[in-house]
Amino acid sequence: MPAAPQPFRTIAIIGNTRDSRVVESLQALAAHLHSRARRVLIDEATSVDYRGVTVEQLPESELCAIADLLIAVGGDGSMLHAARLAAPRGLPVLGINRGRLGFLADIGPTELSTRVDEILAGRYVSDQRAMLQATLSSPGQPDRHCNGLNDVVLQKWQTGRILDFETYIDGRYVNTHGGDGLVIATATGSTAYALSCGGPILYPGLDAMVLAPICPHTLSDRPIVVRSNAVIEVRLLDRPDSNGQVTCDGVSLGALSQGDRLIVQPAAGKVTLLHPADHDYYRTLRSKLRWGRGDRTAPYPDPTSE
Amino acid sequence: MPAAPQPFRTIAIIGNTRDSRVVESLQALAAHLHSRARRVLIDEATSVDYRGVTVEQLPESELCAIADLLIAVGGDGSMLHAARLAAPRGLPVLGINRGRLGFLADIGPTELSTRVDEILAGRYVSDQRAMLQATLSSPGQPDRHCNGLNDVVLQKWQTGRILDFETYIDGRYVNTHGGDGLVIATATGSTAYALSCGGPILYPGLDAMVLAPICPHTLSDRPIVVRSNAVIEVRLLDRPDSNGQVTCDGVSLGALSQGDRLIVQPAAGKVTLLHPADHDYYRTLRSKLRWGRGDRTAPYPDPTSE
Amino acid sequence: MPAAPQPFRTIAIIGNTRDSRVVESLQALAAHLHSRARRVLIDEATSVDYRGVTVEQLPESELCAIADLLIAVGGDGSMLHAARLAAPRGLPVLGINRGRLGFLADIGPTELSTRVDEILAGRYVSDQRAMLQATLSSPGQPDRHCNGLNDVVLQKWQTGRILDFETYIDGRYVNTHGGDGLVIATATGSTAYALSCGGPILYPGLDAMVLAPICPHTLSDRPIVVRSNAVIEVRLLDRPDSNGQVTCDGVSLGALSQGDRLIVQPAAGKVTLLHPADHDYYRTLRSKLRWGRGDRTAPYPDPTSE
Amino acid sequence: MPAAPQPFRTIAIIGNTRDSRVVESLQALAAHLHSRARRVLIDEATSVDYRGVTVEQLPESELCAIADLLIAVGGDGSMLHAARLAAPRGLPVLGINRGRLGFLADIGPTELSTRVDEILAGRYVSDQRAMLQATLSSPGQPDRHCNGLNDVVLQKWQTGRILDFETYIDGRYVNTHGGDGLVIATATGSTAYALSCGGPILYPGLDAMVLAPICPHTLSDRPIVVRSNAVIEVRLLDRPDSNGQVTCDGVSLGALSQGDRLIVQPAAGKVTLLHPADHDYYRTLRSKLRWGRGDRTAPYPDPTSE
Repeated sequence: MPAAPQPFRTIAIIGNTRDSRVVESLQALAAHLHSRARRVLIDEATSVDYRGVTVEQLPESELCAIADLLIAVGGDGSMLHAARLAAPRGLPVLGINRGRLGFLADIGPTELSTRVDEILAGRYVSDQRAMLQATLSSPGQPDRHCNGLNDVVLQKWQTGRILDFETYIDGRYVNTHGGDGLVIATATGSTAYALSCGGPILYPGLDAMVLAPICPHTLSDRPIVVRSNAVIEVRLLDRPDSNGQVTCDGVSLGALSQGDRLIVQPAAGKVTLLHPADHDYYRTLRSKLRWGRGDRTAPYPDPTSE
Repeated sequence: MPAAPQPFRTIAIIGNTRDSRVVESLQALAAHLHSRARRVLIDEATSVDYRGVTVEQLPESELCAIADLLIAVGGDGSMLHAARLAAPRGLPVLGINRGRLGFLADIGPTELSTRVDEILAGRYVSDQRAMLQATLSSPGQPDRHCNGLNDVVLQKWQTGRILDFETYIDGRYVNTHGGDGLVIATATGSTAYALSCGGPILYPGLDAMVLAPICPHTLSDRPIVVRSNAVIEVRLLDRPDSNGQVTCDGVSLGALSQGDRLIVQPAAGKVTLLHPADHDYYRTLRSKLRWGRGDRTAPYPDPTSE
Repeated sequence: MPAAPQPFRTIAIIGNTRDSRVVESLQALAAHLHSRARRVLIDEATSVDYRGVTVEQLPESELCAIADLLIAVGGDGSMLHAARLAAPRGLPVLGINRGRLGFLADIGPTELSTRVDEILAGRYVSDQRAMLQATLSSPGQPDRHCNGLNDVVLQKWQTGRILDFETYIDGRYVNTHGGDGLVIATATGSTAYALSCGGPILYPGLDAMVLAPICPHTLSDRPIVVRSNAVIEVRLLDRPDSNGQVTCDGVSLGALSQGDRLIVQPAAGKVTLLHPADHDYYRTLRSKLRWGRGDRTAPYPDPTSE
Repeated sequence: MPAAPQPFRTIAIIGNTRDSRVVESLQALAAHLHSRARRVLIDEATSVDYRGVTVEQLPESELCAIADLLIAVGGDGSMLHAARLAAPRGLPVLGINRGRLGFLADIGPTELSTRVDEILAGRYVSDQRAMLQATLSSPGQPDRHCNGLNDVVLQKWQTGRILDFETYIDGRYVNTHGGDGLVIATATGSTAYALSCGGPILYPGLDAMVLAPICPHTLSDRPIVVRSNAVIEVRLLDRPDSNGQVTCDGVSLGALSQGDRLIVQPAAGKVTLLHPADHDYYRTLRSKLRWGRGDRTAPYPDPTSE
């Protein structure tokens, strides 16, 4: 918890307004913040009826220049989007889910007023999360960049063919891979796509990232965890019809073609997530993965005790 | 469903009477069967107060000689035990769980009366399940045998050392393994220990068994599925301090030492399981593994939809 | 081994003639067959210089109408292609690899003459392999079909979004999946893509197929093995931007869109593979997966023996 | 590489003298060190014929008090033993393997003279590796301790029963596990037993450890990577016949019974490993796991290119 919590006077609120549950929570949130004498900013591109509550409309890209807190309503996907908006400005982000706990959006819609009041009163924990920067470098073209809080993914694209590619860490050759691609995930993203690819869970405070191959051809091609300040480079092998695409948090950066280089390294800034003061990462993990006491996915009996 | 369902006049009931929930269900079951004019047999080694209900006490080993149905109360472990008792006599087995659905015991304690009445009225499905016979053959000793409905397991025993062993299928050399051991599971047992070892789920009607290495040293040493009438042979390599133990459905058969052979093949008889007429294996699977609609262990967000 | 081996008088030979190693083997093979007084058929669309050896050119689709043996030179991919050509005619297929043992192409280029002579002399084993038929059924369109010896794959296509889909087996609902897709593999295909997705190895003679989810969202969504005559149906859930593609042995059949049904069932005919008389599937497996005696991918030491 | 490499005047050499290849290398090593005017110390409990080379015999426990370098001959198991001897004294350790590259013993017997000369001349890289300390705390008994360079393992012992246990990290409850046990591995040990249990590879320089459950009951119970200075605590649940054993690098520390606590935390000192100056961890990884260019365990063909 920071020594002197910020007062949070001007608060931007965002969410996917095609989802009616999100709209309801945005309405309730705007009304509540207004009742607490906060200035409320919204994205001018959305059209939610705020029912007489005073809100100011701005382009999404300007919200974070003025606000001192960004609240995202929705799932973890909305939080990923919010993180990319907020990180360059150093703005903290708070997440309100639509009724199902997220790894990032950990305030439920029914506890919205109470939890937001706690945060406004300075009762919260803040959590610095590293982000990745992906650079796609093609001969004769300007480099393309994107940032991800969860992961940078190279995957085969519009083809049944496998990708063959090489990985380098800090300039040293690591391995030649064949398969569906590679997930390079932060600790935050280790519980997302990387987990489905057989990667481990990284504790969010861990200064590391994981390279998890996607459906690798070679059965010993296992996930590897390296320091978060390592520089990863990926290049395609020369194969006919090989077709790879790079995404950051699911947003497409572009194709990786032969001769191109994908470079992944720490992004310049971190993003600050706010959580309720009683936040417990392991509790979230137990809830999301159905771990814990008496809630076993129990596939087998114990023959000697029965 | 058999053409002419059996009437089930004499019914043996068993269960682990150290578990108070089991005792309650045994009491309720005995009373209910008595009210339906059935003869009720119990294991003379247990001491449950049947509150005036007439039950006949016999040694456990004789129950199946007289009864025409065996009902096991408890978890899947009790069902495994019941299967070993009933299979040699061809007696069908019905399972009542203690409140949590089992793969084998699929009648809940709250629906006991209704479900048992359905079965007595001939409304059930019956399900033939193959069993395995394990033979431990040591030079100069008589062979030892045991049967398993779930699995035969070779595992390291009282040692931190790995086991090195060779497998043969139908007399042909398959592989040399190093690791914690090997699970040889029936389709029924594929959702038990073998699943924790990375094995696949085998549909119960499938005429196959799976060999799943336990924590194998070699990362490409993957589970292999073979016909259920294959003959598996396992021998230890000559290593100091190597120590393996063979169990059938969790019950110890003995040590596998160097020079010994473990042979696993189909057991002579199958066991007949009874289920309610609306039984659906996939529903059980969804419930046990928390599969299905809207009940996702959802570790990652979908960034593009939010 | 069949009671009366076929004489193999007219032999079609195919291969990817862009690969110079394949061309060399095709030349050697044509010359050798010619020296053994066999009639040699080739695909008229290819232009290999057969150096004076008499070969007859036909459209690829007509080769199998005339030949009584099809020999494919190349890797397992060429064998998959050959199987699709040969299966409808009941023609046996023999595979010659380019220097690396395949699961299907198990004659090496250096032993070509000896091995081919053995096969011509009737010294071989023949091996019937089941194939899958995929049907893509879209409202208002004629059904599209394709056959696969290895697998039918549904995969996300040109999207970072996961696919959400439901599976049914023999008309019964099995599970709702989220992830990168699903591999439905024959025993033959179990060592191909399905293995990279965490599926088991199925012994080729096993009358079964495996459904292996690709990078599933739900960690308990595990491969399931069912009888090979089961009918699998897959339907997409209603999600925005969901985009799936169906391939058979890597060849695209078409997009699976919402409202469409993918049906996978046994193909009408099996394909007959020929192998040298000393063929041993487990030896192939050991070679391909680097199993076996003294050739361990040995990641850990044994501390107590050193 | 240190600014001022140590001269290494007095060198202790150890190895498992029951292995004749180890004895040969010890003889060659002693002769070579003697020819380079080094003082050579050996364990007095071994009886190798050093053929006239002057060696000094000491109890194993005193070798590290006098030597300024410890050379272990054997496999990685010998290196684990050497690390436990050397770490408390801050002595560097060098490893010579018996002909197969180890993760820790990376000098081959055929290059012994050249490589040792390089190290004596100060041309080496040194590598600090963290170790774990395990404490077994039983009510009414003095605490028992052991250190491990690879791992601390809790495993079921002399039982077919699974272990049920709870984990805590830095005092916070993490999960309740059922299964065969838990591997707590350093980055060094991540390529040992933890890898066979589905854990990731941790780069050796990474300040982290991994908790990998062994054959867990719950399919979502996945490996978790935490900072290396975390304090792990494990307690058994109250189950009949539950029987767990704790080992450090394969050496038994004792039984974990109900009411006991297993605490794992960073050991006080690190161990210094020496490697040849051209050492490349990724090359070792590629060699041990059969990774890399053109050396694929290639289970599936690429149908579109052939």
